[in-house]
Amino acid sequence: MDGKERAAKRACEYVEQGMTVGLGTGSTAEYMILYLAKREEKEHLGLTCVATSTRSGELARKRGLKVVGFDEVEMLDLTIDGADEIDYSLSGIKGGGGSLLYEKLVASASKKVIWIADESKMVDRIGKFPLPIEIVPFYHDKLFRKLSEEGYHPKYRLDGEKPFVTDGGNYIFDLHLEEILEPKVLHEKLKLMTGVIETGLFIDLTDMVIVGGEHQERVIEKK
Amino acid sequence: MDGKERAAKRACEYVEQGMTVGLGTGSTAEYMILYLAKREEKEHLGLTCVATSTRSGELARKRGLKVVGFDEVEMLDLTIDGADEIDYSLSGIKGGGGSLLYEKLVASASKKVIWIADESKMVDRIGKFPLPIEIVPFYHDKLFRKLSEEGYHPKYRLDGEKPFVTDGGNYIFDLHLEEILEPKVLHEKLKLMTGVIETGLFIDLTDMVIVGGEHQERVIEKK
Repeated sequence: MDGKERAAKRACEYVEQGMTVGLGTGSTAEYMILYLAKREEKEHLGLTCVATSTRSGELARKRGLKVVGFDEVEMLDLTIDGADEIDYSLSGIKGGGGSLLYEKLVASASKKVIWIADESKMVDRIGKFPLPIEIVPFYHDKLFRKLSEEGYHPKYRLDGEKPFVTDGGNYIFDLHLEEILEPKVLHEKLKLMTGVIETGLFIDLTDMVIVGGEHQERVIEKK
Repeated sequence: MDGKERAAKRACEYVEQGMTVGLGTGSTAEYMILYLAKREEKEHLGLTCVATSTRSGELARKRGLKVVGFDEVEMLDLTIDGADEIDYSLSGIKGGGGSLLYEKLVASASKKVIWIADESKMVDRIGKFPLPIEIVPFYHDKLFRKLSEEGYHPKYRLDGEKPFVTDGGNYIFDLHLEEILEPKVLHEKLKLMTGVIETGLFIDLTDMVIVGGEHQERVIEKK
């Protein structure tokens, strides 16, 4: 069992009878969906799930989980999701899978958020992983130029030769920053730009990180 | 000639040979499009226009103006647009017509922006006109609840009985605030909310306002 799978399995232990659960997107989250479906099958937990992407929703349905629209639930009890880079204050970068906006919206509506990851995702300072931002397609070229001029080193997220289109119908730029000294300041600067819908900087949104290693996992809780 | 038409006509005098012109949306902007088309027909100005809504684009094309996609031009020379409420520092509320996002993006890419309005739009303090914000549909119900709880008095913009959908595929909430004491502070607070794409507060974006009265117009320039 690799670290991702180990973290995913452990996270599923936090799911209780009758909960409304947010399902993340990405390879680690997919392990979690598989384990959650197994628990549902065995224990009949009566879970209601909300997916952060069409891909996760399809996988969950196929495995027998009950998936409803985000607007059919008022609040979620728990969301379990992966992340691309996490520091020890539990700030992180998400969006490598292209679902940062819906992931952030679902996390914002969740009483508790658990991130699952392998050891490779834990860093002292985030930013080595390119920071995704979701942007308004109508303005893409001007915003790209502006971000380039201001030193953010944007690259278009591509799907083959065309721009990648998110579930919300938007584009993604990946900002190659190498390191982020002040995540909150950077998030606010970017989010305030006209044409930026959301950033992949997740700050103060996560309650617990489960990091899977080769033989065990460790649980880091928010201070 | 009413005030809107008078202001629209005057604004067209600022358009010069070969310019790239941004076309606003709404009843006052429609007067402007008609006058601009007349000037083009008579004087062969060779204008290239970018529309802030499908509606304005269609009208302009029908009247013989050359309309291109926003991404076909690098920068605009001049944008002429209406506004719903304007104060004497040239801050304003836009979005009554539902095109606030594209209007703000086009204004942001324009060397000069002129607003046209009749006297009824000029106020000492903005906010009586409900402030539109463009929001991510996926999150509409949660954001509506949050904004209600925080005292922003949101209402869904409707199209018949369904939510109004913008050209960008999003929803609009109109915030019934009565007065806005600090437009910039409010804009930043709202724009930083996850799920808010843009606000109808236009601050430091406008260079000149032309206000049409019954018999004349006045020109207010940015200090």
